[in-house]
Amino acid sequence: MSSIDEFALIRLLNGGKQSATLVTAAGVITGIGDDAAVVEASPGSHLILTCDTMTEHIHFKQVTMRDEDIGYKAMASAVSDIAAMGGVPRFALVALSMPGGTAVERVQAIYEGLYECASRYGIAIVGGDTTAILGELTLTVTVIGETEQGKAKLRSTAQPGDAVFATGYLGRSAAGLDFLLGQNVPSGEWTVFPEQTEALVQAHCRPEPQIEAGQVLQRSGVCRALNDVSDGLASEMWEIAEASGVGIDLIEERIPIADELAAFARTQGKDPLDYILYGGEDYQLVGTVPAGNAIELQMKFKEAGLALHVIGYVHAEGQGVRMVQNNGYIVPLAKHGYNHFSGADGKGGV
Amino acid sequence: MSSIDEFALIRLLNGGKQSATLVTAAGVITGIGDDAAVVEASPGSHLILTCDTMTEHIHFKQVTMRDEDIGYKAMASAVSDIAAMGGVPRFALVALSMPGGTAVERVQAIYEGLYECASRYGIAIVGGDTTAILGELTLTVTVIGETEQGKAKLRSTAQPGDAVFATGYLGRSAAGLDFLLGQNVPSGEWTVFPEQTEALVQAHCRPEPQIEAGQVLQRSGVCRALNDVSDGLASEMWEIAEASGVGIDLIEERIPIADELAAFARTQGKDPLDYILYGGEDYQLVGTVPAGNAIELQMKFKEAGLALHVIGYVHAEGQGVRMVQNNGYIVPLAKHGYNHFSGADGKGGV
Repeated sequence: MSSIDEFALIRLLNGGKQSATLVTAAGVITGIGDDAAVVEASPGSHLILTCDTMTEHIHFKQVTMRDEDIGYKAMASAVSDIAAMGGVPRFALVALSMPGGTAVERVQAIYEGLYECASRYGIAIVGGDTTAILGELTLTVTVIGETEQGKAKLRSTAQPGDAVFATGYLGRSAAGLDFLLGQNVPSGEWTVFPEQTEALVQAHCRPEPQIEAGQVLQRSGVCRALNDVSDGLASEMWEIAEASGVGIDLIEERIPIADELAAFARTQGKDPLDYILYGGEDYQLVGTVPAGNAIELQMKFKEAGLALHVIGYVHAEGQGVRMVQNNGYIVPLAKHGYNHFSGADGKGGV
Repeated sequence: MSSIDEFALIRLLNGGKQSATLVTAAGVITGIGDDAAVVEASPGSHLILTCDTMTEHIHFKQVTMRDEDIGYKAMASAVSDIAAMGGVPRFALVALSMPGGTAVERVQAIYEGLYECASRYGIAIVGGDTTAILGELTLTVTVIGETEQGKAKLRSTAQPGDAVFATGYLGRSAAGLDFLLGQNVPSGEWTVFPEQTEALVQAHCRPEPQIEAGQVLQRSGVCRALNDVSDGLASEMWEIAEASGVGIDLIEERIPIADELAAFARTQGKDPLDYILYGGEDYQLVGTVPAGNAIELQMKFKEAGLALHVIGYVHAEGQGVRMVQNNGYIVPLAKHGYNHFSGADGKGGV
C-alpha cells in the first residue's frame, strides 16, 4: 500500500458505501473528509458513547474470522454497548492501525464488514483515522448513540425481588470459536460447514447486537438493570450483582440451550453451560425486571417477535452469584472460567 | 500487570482524576463504569466527532516523548480537530492497547497526561477500552465536541480574494522532534534543556490546540475556511486549495518564524521554512478570511490576547499552492516534504 496516500485510501474504503438517503436520514451534516464530522442528534436526547478495540491474535486470528467478519464484529461489539443502555446507535468513527505490507484488499474487506453492520443498524460512519502500526492489525470503533433523556438502562439498578432475564441463546459464540480453533483452517479456505456448526460460526463471526430488544425493554418502563453479554453470563451477572449491591441466583433448568450448542458440546465432551457461563461475545442482553412484571414483559417481547427467558432471581446482597442446579444443589459461580487463546480475552489486565 | 483485572485497572487509571464539579458541569449523566457513558449535549448544538491514533515507534519513541506526553498529545491532537471546526470539546473516550509486560506505572503516567489535557480544555473522559496487543502500545482518543448549528468551519469554503491566516508560530514541533532524535536520550533521563530548545521540546510534546482561537474565528462571522496544522503548512494549504477548488499563494516574508526555531535551524544548517512547511503537529489553525475583513479579524484576536498572521492570499484555481519568495520568485510548493522516522508520519498509506 506504499503507493496510496491517505486521502486516496479514505476514498477507496469509504466512497459510495452508504446511500445519501441513509447519511442524510442519520443526521450527518458533514461526513468524512474534513478535520472532523458534524452531525445532529435528536432534540431532547441524551448521547450514549462507547468504543471497542479488536486486535489480531488477541480478539481474532486468521483461522477464526474472515476479514469482513473482523469489521462486522468490531462494529457489532460497540453497537451492543448501545443496546445494553437501551439506546439507538447513530454515528460511528473507525480507527484502523495496519502493519506494513497489509494488502489493500484486506483493508477493503474489513471496511465492507464495518459498513455492512453499520448499514444494518442505520449507523452513519462519519470519520476515523488510519495509521501504520508496529504490531498486529488493530481496529477501534467508536459508536455514538442516543436515548430519551433519563431513560438509559444501567447495570447498577437491580433490586431484590427482580427476575433475571436473557434475550436469547448464550454460549454459541464461544462454541463457534472452539470449533474454528479446533478446525484450524485459514478463513480464506473455509468451505460450507454442517448446518449446526454453521450456526455456531455465524454466532461467533456475525453476532447480532440486540438494539430492538433494548428498545422494547426501555419502552416497557419496567426493565431495571441491563447488561450485554460480552464476557459470559457469569461475569455479566457478577457485574450487575456488584454494581447493584445484590445477590443473584440463576436457575439451571431455566437457562435456554440452543440445539446446536448442545450437539457441539456433546462432541467435545463438555457441558453446554461452560460455554454459556464463561464463553462471552454473544451480545444478547441480560437484565432484571420486578418479578411481578416479568410476564407482562415477556408478552411485549412476543408481540415484537422476540424471545425473553426468565433465568433467575435477585436476592439481597451477601451471597454473590449462585447457580440452583438441576440436582437441587446451590453452588457459588466464579466470575471467570477458562479464557480463550492468548490466555486472556484481551480485555484489561495484560 | 497480570495480577490486576480490568475493573481494578479502570479504577486505578480513572479514579478521582476529574472533580465532580467538572464532570457535572461537562454534562456527564453516567460516566465510566457501565457499558457506555450517558452525556447531555447543549440544546440546539451540532456534534463534532473525531478520533486520533498514536502508536509507539510511529508517532512517538522513548527518546521523543515522556509517558505523560503520550497521553497529553493523543488527547491534544483530537482536540485540535475540534478547534479546526470552530467547536468546543466536551467528552472523550480512550482506547488503550498494551503489549504484554507494560508496567502499570507507564499506563498510569499516560493517563495522567490524558487527564491533564482533558481538564485543561474542560473535557470529561467518560469511557473507553483497554486491551492487550501483540505489538506496540497504541492509543486512540475519540473526542466529541459541539458547535452552534450550522456554524462548523470547513476546509472547503475558501474563495478567491480571501486572505490566508495562521494563528501562531509553525515548525517548532518538528524542530523539537529533530532535536530530540538527534539527542537520542531516553525521556526518563532528560535533564533541563537550554531555554530555546526547551520551547521546541515543549511544542513537540505539549502542543496547544487552539480552541479559543477557533471560537474567536467562529464568532467573528467572517472566517471562511479553517484547518489545523497537523501535517505541515504546505499540506494544510493543499487541503484547503483542493477542497475549495482554489489556488493559494503564500508570502514568505509574512510567515512568522519563532526565534527559537531560527536559532535551532541555524545549528542544523537548515532553513526554518523546511520545518514550517513540512513539519506538522503544531496544531495552530490556518484558514481564510475575505481580505477586506482581515484587519477587523486581527483586532478581534488582539482583544482576545491572541495572534493572527496574514501569510498569503487565495486565487482562482489552476495554480495550486505557491510561495512568493523573498527573492521575488514565485515557486510551486510540493504537498509533502521529508517525513519523520519510520518513513511516514503514520497517517494513511503504509
